[in-house]
Amino acid sequence: MRTAKAAVMPDFHRPLEIREYPLPEALDPGMVLVRVEMAGICGTDVHLWKGQLPIPRPLILGHETVGTIVKLGEGVTTDWTGVPLSEGDRVTWYAGRLCGQCFYCVRKRQPTRCLKRRAYGITYACDTPPHFLGGYAEYHVLLPGSAIFKLTDLSTEMVIGAGCALNTAVHGIERVGISWGDIVVIQGSGPVGLAALAVAKTAGAHLTIVIGGPAHRLELAKQFGADQTISIEDVPDPGERIERVRSLSGGYGADVVIECVGIPSAVAEGWEMCRDGGKYLVLGHYGDAGPTALNPHVITRKQLTVYGSWASEPRHMAMALEFLRRAGDRFPFDRLVSHRFSLDRAAEALEATARWTSIKSAIVP
Amino acid sequence: MRTAKAAVMPDFHRPLEIREYPLPEALDPGMVLVRVEMAGICGTDVHLWKGQLPIPRPLILGHETVGTIVKLGEGVTTDWTGVPLSEGDRVTWYAGRLCGQCFYCVRKRQPTRCLKRRAYGITYACDTPPHFLGGYAEYHVLLPGSAIFKLTDLSTEMVIGAGCALNTAVHGIERVGISWGDIVVIQGSGPVGLAALAVAKTAGAHLTIVIGGPAHRLELAKQFGADQTISIEDVPDPGERIERVRSLSGGYGADVVIECVGIPSAVAEGWEMCRDGGKYLVLGHYGDAGPTALNPHVITRKQLTVYGSWASEPRHMAMALEFLRRAGDRFPFDRLVSHRFSLDRAAEALEATARWTSIKSAIVP
Amino acid sequence: MRTAKAAVMPDFHRPLEIREYPLPEALDPGMVLVRVEMAGICGTDVHLWKGQLPIPRPLILGHETVGTIVKLGEGVTTDWTGVPLSEGDRVTWYAGRLCGQCFYCVRKRQPTRCLKRRAYGITYACDTPPHFLGGYAEYHVLLPGSAIFKLTDLSTEMVIGAGCALNTAVHGIERVGISWGDIVVIQGSGPVGLAALAVAKTAGAHLTIVIGGPAHRLELAKQFGADQTISIEDVPDPGERIERVRSLSGGYGADVVIECVGIPSAVAEGWEMCRDGGKYLVLGHYGDAGPTALNPHVITRKQLTVYGSWASEPRHMAMALEFLRRAGDRFPFDRLVSHRFSLDRAAEALEATARWTSIKSAIVP
Amino acid sequence: MRTAKAAVMPDFHRPLEIREYPLPEALDPGMVLVRVEMAGICGTDVHLWKGQLPIPRPLILGHETVGTIVKLGEGVTTDWTGVPLSEGDRVTWYAGRLCGQCFYCVRKRQPTRCLKRRAYGITYACDTPPHFLGGYAEYHVLLPGSAIFKLTDLSTEMVIGAGCALNTAVHGIERVGISWGDIVVIQGSGPVGLAALAVAKTAGAHLTIVIGGPAHRLELAKQFGADQTISIEDVPDPGERIERVRSLSGGYGADVVIECVGIPSAVAEGWEMCRDGGKYLVLGHYGDAGPTALNPHVITRKQLTVYGSWASEPRHMAMALEFLRRAGDRFPFDRLVSHRFSLDRAAEALEATARWTSIKSAIVP
Repeated sequence: MRTAKAAVMPDFHRPLEIREYPLPEALDPGMVLVRVEMAGICGTDVHLWKGQLPIPRPLILGHETVGTIVKLGEGVTTDWTGVPLSEGDRVTWYAGRLCGQCFYCVRKRQPTRCLKRRAYGITYACDTPPHFLGGYAEYHVLLPGSAIFKLTDLSTEMVIGAGCALNTAVHGIERVGISWGDIVVIQGSGPVGLAALAVAKTAGAHLTIVIGGPAHRLELAKQFGADQTISIEDVPDPGERIERVRSLSGGYGADVVIECVGIPSAVAEGWEMCRDGGKYLVLGHYGDAGPTALNPHVITRKQLTVYGSWASEPRHMAMALEFLRRAGDRFPFDRLVSHRFSLDRAAEALEATARWTSIKSAIVP
Repeated sequence: MRTAKAAVMPDFHRPLEIREYPLPEALDPGMVLVRVEMAGICGTDVHLWKGQLPIPRPLILGHETVGTIVKLGEGVTTDWTGVPLSEGDRVTWYAGRLCGQCFYCVRKRQPTRCLKRRAYGITYACDTPPHFLGGYAEYHVLLPGSAIFKLTDLSTEMVIGAGCALNTAVHGIERVGISWGDIVVIQGSGPVGLAALAVAKTAGAHLTIVIGGPAHRLELAKQFGADQTISIEDVPDPGERIERVRSLSGGYGADVVIECVGIPSAVAEGWEMCRDGGKYLVLGHYGDAGPTALNPHVITRKQLTVYGSWASEPRHMAMALEFLRRAGDRFPFDRLVSHRFSLDRAAEALEATARWTSIKSAIVP
Repeated sequence: MRTAKAAVMPDFHRPLEIREYPLPEALDPGMVLVRVEMAGICGTDVHLWKGQLPIPRPLILGHETVGTIVKLGEGVTTDWTGVPLSEGDRVTWYAGRLCGQCFYCVRKRQPTRCLKRRAYGITYACDTPPHFLGGYAEYHVLLPGSAIFKLTDLSTEMVIGAGCALNTAVHGIERVGISWGDIVVIQGSGPVGLAALAVAKTAGAHLTIVIGGPAHRLELAKQFGADQTISIEDVPDPGERIERVRSLSGGYGADVVIECVGIPSAVAEGWEMCRDGGKYLVLGHYGDAGPTALNPHVITRKQLTVYGSWASEPRHMAMALEFLRRAGDRFPFDRLVSHRFSLDRAAEALEATARWTSIKSAIVP
Repeated sequence: MRTAKAAVMPDFHRPLEIREYPLPEALDPGMVLVRVEMAGICGTDVHLWKGQLPIPRPLILGHETVGTIVKLGEGVTTDWTGVPLSEGDRVTWYAGRLCGQCFYCVRKRQPTRCLKRRAYGITYACDTPPHFLGGYAEYHVLLPGSAIFKLTDLSTEMVIGAGCALNTAVHGIERVGISWGDIVVIQGSGPVGLAALAVAKTAGAHLTIVIGGPAHRLELAKQFGADQTISIEDVPDPGERIERVRSLSGGYGADVVIECVGIPSAVAEGWEMCRDGGKYLVLGHYGDAGPTALNPHVITRKQLTVYGSWASEPRHMAMALEFLRRAGDRFPFDRLVSHRFSLDRAAEALEATARWTSIKSAIVP
């Protein structure tokens, strides 16, 4: 029986460790076996490792993955968009699995809240077969019904650099809606912030303001076309940042503010950055970082609408990949992959993400 | 020079007192002089009296008023909907005055946030002429451009019983949007809650649940057609109320939850009453009651949309009055006027509202 | 081998004839065998019979059916909403079958345009097993994945009286959107018109005007709460009908006009009945009755939005049945079933519908 | 008494002729006198000249104008966005005048359908003072309440090249809505088509297809970033054009199709270019070119939504000018001004537009 290695999170807060598991000897119909080429480390992985969501352990993290098809199970002939698949093809995939039949999938059309939603790298313990259901590993098993996307003209770095952040931004901005001509503020200059910037700029925003740090991230924001940046290092006072946004927006505040930092206190600050009748998107709170002081009167008085958006659907990933194909030159997501680690150093890779020293770390098994 | 009496709020927290002011000797073009027949006491008046909004003093409170036209200034020939006006007509009016030209009025189409917005009974000090710009008085002066509505087939009690609560509910529910078949929870059984109930029921809600108290208000909610009521006296535990809502909604929570209580802690409770992908309307926080602990992760994870709605536009009042004409039988708002006070007892009237002993108090000068 | 009878349409325009086919000897997993209790005759059946859509022949018509479960195939344990199913249960079902995976189902969220959409009584020829895939028969086979709804507190007449017309109206009005307070005109007083009336009245319309005939249908419209009716017999001139609508709507026209007649010339008439900025829903053109003269300038000048809506999704049927449960008293759809025919007289039943002599005919095998 | 020259349309179909009228000797409060620098000739002017709308005669055409302020009436201190105005400033203005108070302005929020709407160059006869209420003249009088925009960093050619076509496209695309990632077809490559292309590309369209001609206009479309063009000269068969669009959109058709040609038969062709569930915008039918054969069944079966959009509001012009400031480099609207004519040759200029020999003609008095 062949085995392969994976970086396993034994429990919350404990260092990742390398374990070996047997690869499946045969594939059930609909399954696919992939050799992992690169696995992105998402900020959410840090939140998961810190125990901010109730997930099983031990677990192989990793929900942003590119690999090469080793074996196609019976019946798998095309990718999610109808493109033929063969062994040897380079692919990526949507990390979630939705039932397509439940109250949320079909009755309320909120498939990201599918009652049976599972996600690779998040909801599958790795101590039972087929074990390899997360990206931090040499191999990945794709279960029947997975939404696979064949990569032809897209580099692996481009896909991993965009990561689930781009899917998330596509979904979130679909919900909040950007009107042509809007002034858009983005709180945060990490992968989600940069992805939101790219989507906002191509969705009609005429003036974009990115608030974040450190300097090398803001530099990247400028390369992505941010019209204005505000450094939280240079302007540590929230009140002053609010004033800065107002003065950049004719005194009124922004039409849309997008939170991409995951720090609860950013929300109260962001509400004040909205013009009256403006919109606010909570996009960075996939993990539960606890409550914060918020004033409901502000929502009423400023007549705000506050949107939440959870993860994404396969169609958002299809849109994201299509966007990278068409606009990857303008938005060089491949440059986000700043640090690469072998599988053995996965624990170190996660820490680099936790400490914000990298923009985006990736595991290259 | 003729004078008339008004109940004046000298400052925040101080008892109302009766003062006399001179009536205008002549009316400028566009102005109207009205003899007040009945002035409603809105929950907002209590918030204003407690200093929850920065307003001038001394002030004549009262932004829900019915009266009889004493004199029409030059050029005033019809009401807001084009109906001819004459002296002796019984009328009500939209309490706000909007400029119709500013950034918010025409550029962002948020007229309730008009940069020059003024409101009778709220933003006009009464120590300068024409003094009578609030409802708690014998007379009321309507400035040029006021949106006046002639009352023919509507009783004064019906109009005052609905009050600004109905306009507010019409506007708020327009923003949050109720889909046909929705399950709707209303937090609060005061005038705003009952108005929200009436609008929700006629806007497509198929199951309505009102949470509030005391018992006589819930009884009125039932008369207004609430399918279910939950008494905060009988079920004082928020967690239990959340479970009650979930069990009434198939285990998922409501499609729409409308906050009509003005107590910040209701918001966190209400978010938990929403199904995933549901909508929440903050409608009861016209006054600033300060911040509360709220968890942004809940907005993300449950994929909520949270709406704020400030006051109303004249068109909402036109819709509200039309609704009372057509559906007043089904929704007997006139029964809300539970307590009447002479102008001299205005201070007492305000206190009755503050203590929730009345459903709706009115001043009959 | 047991056989059963069905009324078969051999080809377009040819009379229905009774044929016998073998019942399935065993059920595949997921299938259900139902004894038909009542099958509604939809106006669409007439259009199909006239060859207005490209469908296979021979065919068993009938896509509105109530029956009793004779046998449940392996794995069928609950209805579409999660209610347990047993043999002997009275049920109805959504006539369509959607793949849940195609470009239209998941990528563009237009499941009624599913690329693999099939529909009982419409797209299944009956000359191959399992034959019984339409309602005009003694038995009906439900294929795996059918959306079944158990009926408990709803009468068969209520369900058949509402028929697919109600599902269609729920979907169409979801698309066009009725705002609270709207004036709504409904062109047509057949089953779709009455269903649209019921939905419009409970979706926020404050004034409803039904245009149609003959008199007994308009009488039913009044029983369903139409505020105004206009008889096409009494007012045969379209220009005069337009004037009538305008005068009932303050001179401006209706906020929303819903076409429920299937006659192309109604569209141009209906556009003129809309106020500027109004909305028009083409709901009655499931069949292709060919082009008509329409002026695109009218859409521009009146700033209209014209909506199309095709069939419905299972969730619309769930909403429709829930509505009948709650509001069936107010909207007595059971009274629509004006004529009943034995299966042998199915040809005659279809003709009664074609000639508008019945409101709604039903086959009782 | 000073006089000035204007090119006057004496009646429909009659050649423009030069007449002299007295300039106002004094300005009423709120009025502004402008020396015309350049007046654009809009395709609508041709439609007006052909009698496609009921307008008064004699008339000075011209609703796209740039000029220099000669005199400011009392009380005019800033432009529509609050920028201070002085004599000598170069300005343009919104050609319409809206009442801000009528049923359509405030009650139904459709200000372009204002019941008292007037428009320079369209609704004002020129045989009574102040005569100069259209652009084809040496001077232009702006009446009180006109929405004036000061030009600082925008060239006159850029503003006239964009003309009312850009305002119209901004409004129309706001109504139809383009989602991020949409495939958009534009029927027509004249000024409205190019403006729609510019707005669509910056509003989220990922693939744009322009259908039109002649070749030099399609060349300009490519310079504006059209991803694909289809020449009506090379592909004269509508069926083949439909196939071309389908093959460019994965076989399904476009998400959004925008009609910018004003020829009724384009509409039926365009509906077939939409994917199911797609959207169609009738933007080019400001003039009434009469009815055409359209099949309502197509709207139902394809589940289309068809939008109309009339003219624009001042806020759309503000957005358009802001867009030109930010994105004029990418969309060189100044190059559209292909032909210039002195005022004396205004008749010739109008004919050049009628014959499509120019892209955009302008009068330079």
